Amino acid sequence: MTTASDKQDFHARLLQIGKERYHDKHPFHVMLHGGGCTITQVRAWVINRYYYQSRIPMKDAAFLSRCDDPQLRRAWRSRIEDHDGGLGEGGGIRRWLRLAEAVGLDPGYVASTKGVLPATRFAVDAYVSFVREKPLLEAVASSLTELFAPKIHSERIAGLLEHYAFADDAALAYFRQRLAEAPRDVEFGLGYVLDHADTREKQDAAAAALTFKTDVLWAQLDALYSAYVAPARIPPGAWNGRDGVIREPAAE
Amino acid sequence: MTTASDKQDFHARLLQIGKERYHDKHPFHVMLHGGGCTITQVRAWVINRYYYQSRIPMKDAAFLSRCDDPQLRRAWRSRIEDHDGGLGEGGGIRRWLRLAEAVGLDPGYVASTKGVLPATRFAVDAYVSFVREKPLLEAVASSLTELFAPKIHSERIAGLLEHYAFADDAALAYFRQRLAEAPRDVEFGLGYVLDHADTREKQDAAAAALTFKTDVLWAQLDALYSAYVAPARIPPGAWNGRDGVIREPAAE
Repeated sequence: MTTASDKQDFHARLLQIGKERYHDKHPFHVMLHGGGCTITQVRAWVINRYYYQSRIPMKDAAFLSRCDDPQLRRAWRSRIEDHDGGLGEGGGIRRWLRLAEAVGLDPGYVASTKGVLPATRFAVDAYVSFVREKPLLEAVASSLTELFAPKIHSERIAGLLEHYAFADDAALAYFRQRLAEAPRDVEFGLGYVLDHADTREKQDAAAAALTFKTDVLWAQLDALYSAYVAPARIPPGAWNGRDGVIREPAAE
Repeated sequence: MTTASDKQDFHARLLQIGKERYHDKHPFHVMLHGGGCTITQVRAWVINRYYYQSRIPMKDAAFLSRCDDPQLRRAWRSRIEDHDGGLGEGGGIRRWLRLAEAVGLDPGYVASTKGVLPATRFAVDAYVSFVREKPLLEAVASSLTELFAPKIHSERIAGLLEHYAFADDAALAYFRQRLAEAPRDVEFGLGYVLDHADTREKQDAAAAALTFKTDVLWAQLDALYSAYVAPARIPPGAWNGRDGVIREPAAE
């Protein structure tokens, strides 16, 4: 059993993981937010990050499928709704495809996930498997990178608006919407983890789950950097910088 | 149904995948075999590749666990024996740890898999999941990178012996042994795939499985290159070039 002070220490430990390992420190994000990315690099990010977005509802469905507490399912279900939207409209995935269009990509090409880097697939699929296989506490803890997301989304909106001509409210709707959704999700997830990690062993497991998730995010940017930042080494079969491009975006 | 000439074309198609995508073309292997790697880069390769070796028997056990044909299980089982060896001796995993010792690493550290790059884990775990989840034909087809392995093992033995003082018969026993084992395994696997991929759809699925496996191998070298070749970007928590080093190897 843990005391209130244990709980505080554990909360601080989780925040420290983000400080040390969250992907806002990755050089690709520094380039992206500072206007240092070419349009090809921005497109590569949009194509690959789409794969992550597309797997989030599957990850959350895997979570629901293992969850025998109706109240926990009810609280968690909105995540799927937020990402998938309704039959005809809304949802993070469609908003992401608006960003794809804004950077001159065919949204059908992006949605096909052709050209996604194998390393992106491996990292994202590892996250889905983790949530499918691990104890619920660890599955919830792995979602807590959302603790650190509002800061990166705010920086991204400001940075993209400042540096790239394609960036406008429609293009960036995904990030603005996440600024509204993520705090609600993470408040619930954080409360759950702080309450249920009531032994040192469970705290260690939850911290390891959050660390794992920071690895999933970091590895995606490493793969992008390796493939598309000079000296670029695009793996066989991955996006070549031309497929799916339908028009050049407005001049900078 | 396929004709003999279909089968020949399909065989050629599989070989072509190796020509275009096998990891012997990766710049990290070119460096390694040509003597261009520092001892730290060789050690990083040994540490990360160990993770791959360590998961091969688990992958093959996943295959056996789904295989209701006793004769197929009997033919496949030797792969586990080859890698794991007996209770007290033998096996590819122990031979790999001899290589670890030869390059000055603590074999216990390497066997702990601490310091393995997250991207290595994601790629290798994707391979194990693939074999656990896909139809048997695709699981067998994903093993056919062994078609291309004898060449890389021969080049590696010659290149390591020529360029690195640590390389001797004991250090390189893993590769010599694989030269004896892999041709037997791949003859069986190739025969199985050529016989069972008896529609165009199954041929496509088998070719995709082999392509997937080349991605798994390529992604591991990409991750090594990105982390340990200048400008090195070691991800948070991965091997720092010092942990597990017990001595410097003999001078070059």
